[in-house]
Amino acid sequence: MSMVRDICERTARTKYDVQLLSTEKKNAILTRAAADLVEDQDRILAANDCDVRAAKEKGMKASMVDRLRLTPDRIAQMAEGLKQVASLPDPVGRVLDAWDRPSGIHIEKVSVPLGVIGIIYESRPNVTADAFALTLKSGNVVVLKGGSDAIFSNEAITKSLQRTLREEGAPEDAVLLIDSVNREDTKELMQMKGLVDVLIPRGSKRLIQAVTENSRVPVIETGSGNCCIYVDRAADLEKSIPVILNAKTQRTGVCNAAESLIVHRDIEKDFLPLFARAMKEHSVELHADEESLPFLPDAVPATEEDYETEYLDLKMSVKTVGSVEEAIDHINRVHTGHSDCILTTDPAAAEKFLERVDSACVYVNASTRFTDGFEFGFGAEIGISTQKLHARGPMGLTELTSYKYRVTGDYAVRG
Amino acid sequence: MSMVRDICERTARTKYDVQLLSTEKKNAILTRAAADLVEDQDRILAANDCDVRAAKEKGMKASMVDRLRLTPDRIAQMAEGLKQVASLPDPVGRVLDAWDRPSGIHIEKVSVPLGVIGIIYESRPNVTADAFALTLKSGNVVVLKGGSDAIFSNEAITKSLQRTLREEGAPEDAVLLIDSVNREDTKELMQMKGLVDVLIPRGSKRLIQAVTENSRVPVIETGSGNCCIYVDRAADLEKSIPVILNAKTQRTGVCNAAESLIVHRDIEKDFLPLFARAMKEHSVELHADEESLPFLPDAVPATEEDYETEYLDLKMSVKTVGSVEEAIDHINRVHTGHSDCILTTDPAAAEKFLERVDSACVYVNASTRFTDGFEFGFGAEIGISTQKLHARGPMGLTELTSYKYRVTGDYAVRG
Repeated sequence: MSMVRDICERTARTKYDVQLLSTEKKNAILTRAAADLVEDQDRILAANDCDVRAAKEKGMKASMVDRLRLTPDRIAQMAEGLKQVASLPDPVGRVLDAWDRPSGIHIEKVSVPLGVIGIIYESRPNVTADAFALTLKSGNVVVLKGGSDAIFSNEAITKSLQRTLREEGAPEDAVLLIDSVNREDTKELMQMKGLVDVLIPRGSKRLIQAVTENSRVPVIETGSGNCCIYVDRAADLEKSIPVILNAKTQRTGVCNAAESLIVHRDIEKDFLPLFARAMKEHSVELHADEESLPFLPDAVPATEEDYETEYLDLKMSVKTVGSVEEAIDHINRVHTGHSDCILTTDPAAAEKFLERVDSACVYVNASTRFTDGFEFGFGAEIGISTQKLHARGPMGLTELTSYKYRVTGDYAVRG
Repeated sequence: MSMVRDICERTARTKYDVQLLSTEKKNAILTRAAADLVEDQDRILAANDCDVRAAKEKGMKASMVDRLRLTPDRIAQMAEGLKQVASLPDPVGRVLDAWDRPSGIHIEKVSVPLGVIGIIYESRPNVTADAFALTLKSGNVVVLKGGSDAIFSNEAITKSLQRTLREEGAPEDAVLLIDSVNREDTKELMQMKGLVDVLIPRGSKRLIQAVTENSRVPVIETGSGNCCIYVDRAADLEKSIPVILNAKTQRTGVCNAAESLIVHRDIEKDFLPLFARAMKEHSVELHADEESLPFLPDAVPATEEDYETEYLDLKMSVKTVGSVEEAIDHINRVHTGHSDCILTTDPAAAEKFLERVDSACVYVNASTRFTDGFEFGFGAEIGISTQKLHARGPMGLTELTSYKYRVTGDYAVRG
């Protein structure tokens, strides 16, 4: 049997035992895991050091090395994350609905774990502890396939988590790491339909695309965000600037950052100079259409491709439209269905935008940066879904559950 | 451009218009479609006649020809189905949740259509009208790929539905049929990720498997049901027989029919003779394990394969166990996660079974035949999901929706 299949089978065998853990037990495990991570800090940092040195030798970009690096502070943050998840309500076992039928049966719809969750991720080792916390709290077991750059770090963290499980008398196979650097193993994991219930890729667009295209296991697609902000002719122009700045510049490398500005023709003359000044102050490079170019002294001409690009950088595309309908059509054509915003004081335009823009999160007078499990109040986040099946938008613990129907009768038969 | 891509693009272009149809308009379309189907009956029956003749010439089994055949009665039933869906509540636009956040934003979670739904089905032409009704009522558009045996029938029904849409001033591309008999077209439909939001295969196990294995479009897996009934040692033996009979014999060719009986060792001597007599009266062939064989005079020895087989026939496998836990483990190993039942008067055994059996529908003292959208009170059914993502068990109109977050603020920015 291959290593990947063996790991998936071991995890799958554990899932029923994990489903039976009480809320108290799960919380005890998470709280202890937090302490154990800090206790095991030296070993984790030493392992991380190997990864970081190898990455530097390979010539990895400094920003990527930074993502990879662990410090005592970052380990403390990981531990804090585990404790936070312990403090959240248990998402399984909730009665979502209950009703009687004339046939004499009583039906209860109850939330249950999904089962075996596979997480494929890249160079951030903190995902290891994060994914464990969320999957365990939601009664699931997890198979991890981290990036090869973080292999020693991921191993050390997983070992610490498994020690906690063992010492708490819980099944240590509730978290297993595919500790290889072989791409074929990732491909094999995508074929584990029947053993793995769902795959969640976390990382670059390329990774996510590779998983959604090649997986036979159902996938929750996350991450890609070509977010648009439309400044309506009825927008408060002064107040709009800080919202756009927040959406564009607060953090540029994240999926909920804005990438494109769409502006109504009627206000371009008044608005675009304000916008240009603010963007210049924050060193944002503008790619503008022919009509807006004259108002944007430092902009370069935009191509069609610009409007479809998630820059993840200090860049923004600009487009002029003649109506809210035109803005909506344009957005639905170029966006990724993640987060889009209208700035307006006109309730009719706002309602039209909310109704017709086909995104997970549609905003009126609020920054797209709010698309986040913590900002939404979920207390945790496993990713942001850009698909419509199962879960859409920020996914917290609830989104890691399914449901079952419990049906009871008095020896009832169908007529 | 290929025919399949052209059809998917036309349907996709229509989806925003269909999403904007009011509940009243959708109901008007469905009600008129019911009348139009009856009006177009002669043309539909003539087309169906071509299909039936071709099928007979090909030597199709009589039971399959019967599935294919339309009659005035069956067309009336299809029309009735359309009217019934018109009478159901609209599943879109419901506020599922709403809350404020300390950051000043207000969040509403609202149900929305999925978008473009692809249905791949086999020889039952009634699915054409059925799928149209459910998808339209839930604000979706639909691409149909029916079986080649029913091609003329499906075309005639689709034309009738498109006429209704046109005469009601609604987009006729809301329902499009891939009217080819080419398997390559089905494969191409499975590649239409980005245009088609979800694929639902309806039909044989082989069809469903082919779609789930080859599709790049997300799939909702339906149908396969290896349903088990466990007779606990605390079961009321007399009362158990009618439940088993109902589950096994009311209809044998359906996914919610029982396929396997599991019996507790302590009652085998008293129960199995009762069971054997009832099964004999209904000509059910039994495949039994070594321990139960002596009590079942007409049974043949069971193989491991028997326990994993969905007979869809007057056949049933029998297995003896020593405890409810053993029964649960066995079921979780061999079943398809569709519907399983315990017969018992012991609340502890019932609770354990409800909790641990990993199926869409778990029954206590009720027939597995209740797993059905109508029996559950959904008023409609597009299929029965055996997967855990998105929807599980009977799927009605609600299961054809997703949700979006509508977020409003007063030019709110993330801190």
